[in-house]
Amino acid sequence: VVLGIGDDGAIVRPAADRELVIVIDTLVEGVHFPPGMDPADIAYRAVAVNLSDIAAMASRPRWMTLALTLAEADADWLEGFSGGLFEAAEEHNLVLIGGDTTRGSEIVITVQVTGDVLPGCALRRSGARVGDDLYVTGTVGDAAAGLALWLAESAQDENEHYLRRRFARPTARVAFASALAAHASAAIDLSDGLYADIDKLLMASRCSASIDVGNLPLSAALTAVRGDESAIDLALRGGDDYEIAFTAPRSSAAAIAELADAHALRVTRIGAVTSGHGLRCLREGQTLPFVNAGYRHFGDHHA
Amino acid sequence: VVLGIGDDGAIVRPAADRELVIVIDTLVEGVHFPPGMDPADIAYRAVAVNLSDIAAMASRPRWMTLALTLAEADADWLEGFSGGLFEAAEEHNLVLIGGDTTRGSEIVITVQVTGDVLPGCALRRSGARVGDDLYVTGTVGDAAAGLALWLAESAQDENEHYLRRRFARPTARVAFASALAAHASAAIDLSDGLYADIDKLLMASRCSASIDVGNLPLSAALTAVRGDESAIDLALRGGDDYEIAFTAPRSSAAAIAELADAHALRVTRIGAVTSGHGLRCLREGQTLPFVNAGYRHFGDHHA
Repeated sequence: VVLGIGDDGAIVRPAADRELVIVIDTLVEGVHFPPGMDPADIAYRAVAVNLSDIAAMASRPRWMTLALTLAEADADWLEGFSGGLFEAAEEHNLVLIGGDTTRGSEIVITVQVTGDVLPGCALRRSGARVGDDLYVTGTVGDAAAGLALWLAESAQDENEHYLRRRFARPTARVAFASALAAHASAAIDLSDGLYADIDKLLMASRCSASIDVGNLPLSAALTAVRGDESAIDLALRGGDDYEIAFTAPRSSAAAIAELADAHALRVTRIGAVTSGHGLRCLREGQTLPFVNAGYRHFGDHHA
Repeated sequence: VVLGIGDDGAIVRPAADRELVIVIDTLVEGVHFPPGMDPADIAYRAVAVNLSDIAAMASRPRWMTLALTLAEADADWLEGFSGGLFEAAEEHNLVLIGGDTTRGSEIVITVQVTGDVLPGCALRRSGARVGDDLYVTGTVGDAAAGLALWLAESAQDENEHYLRRRFARPTARVAFASALAAHASAAIDLSDGLYADIDKLLMASRCSASIDVGNLPLSAALTAVRGDESAIDLALRGGDDYEIAFTAPRSSAAAIAELADAHALRVTRIGAVTSGHGLRCLREGQTLPFVNAGYRHFGDHHA
């Protein structure tokens, strides 16, 4: 960073011979998060969803700008927000270099992150090939269950707290995904739900895939709180997980297992890439008549 | 641009040995522009205010991302918006590489622009030195008068149309400012009003300056519509001009005059940098008891 906040713009010096990855994502109160959420969580989440996009490209996050629209400037709220913002940023050596604060009738947070990557090494959605394995990081479905608990104002036990936190504080898989670039063929981050997002990856790669829902990585908290059937449904259709789905040739399997170990990260092979189009879900060998209704962020019913 | 819209992020390849300039600015309906404004103008303006920041740093605009929050997705509105966005971008070879569209209760537009500049060549607010001349591009006060006409729903003659357009379609001084870098010592763009913004430049440079209000560049339209006194007041305090105020050593005067000619741009020396702090306004040698109340964008009374 040559020049940070305080002038008309920030000045940064990119590393020599790198490509830049640029992402931008907006969270709107009442649409992407419930009103009244802890401002530290809101800020953390606004950064994390962008870091998740950076991770999905196997990029290294460098610089962040923030556009914050608020109905009122409450000092306590801003202090909490600022705390969550810097917490998320510092976990990934991300530097806030500029911003704009405006007044509006509701909270709108736009975060923009610039990352860098060695030329040609970014992971795209379009690189999957027939025969590749299909993987997902972490566990899926937790965040959607957490949001439901948030809306029901339920926080009865440790499992529920865990799920709520999975919604409020998504973990962007930055370090793992960056190391993954050498081994994977394609990647996408899971924001709209595993089924919908993997479908986008397959569309971009002009391939099909089948997954066995029995292989979906479910947290113990999710199955405890929701039961097996609902857990699988949330894993397939629930959004806001911000895990990474990726494909890799079979020859990378050992390297990926090592990488997962090195990052103490659960990484699960959930299926395989085939020819054709669209994602098929199998259960004990039978095709599930799964209709992708798509995930609705909280508040999309405003439509 | 290595990879544009459609993946988790965009990939761009920066030119070798350049610094990057990153700016972000938000426009909120009812705060920064009146409800019901032509969507093409809204979009043009959202890009132009960011290009003006890029210009103030003497940078060359390269890549843009857009975060657009809308209450409803109206196809006609979006088509108009898109037209104005690309019109502004194409004037400056700026490429839209990514975006995020979300639903909210009002229109919120955040544009982020990345530009580049030769290392060390960006203009900052902090470079003014005692003895420098103080200049401004174009004419000032027009946009504030234009906004007032907008709010009064008045568009009686060519002068009024001109002023309204100066509000709706600000001209970012990108090409001139980029060439200016070699000759100027400091620069800022005029968004909050000439007085307030030059005061910020002087604060950053730890200098003072005096200007003769008789030298302020006023458009014929502004004096025709508002009269001399109101024109001067708007020139000092009216915002949204998106002209560039800059300082340069006396030895650069001839080069700056040539540059202005080459860009067919009115550039006016309005004063000189002195020691001390704050901006003094003189009229025929007498200090004006000018109180900087600051410019209020339309709608700031919501505060």
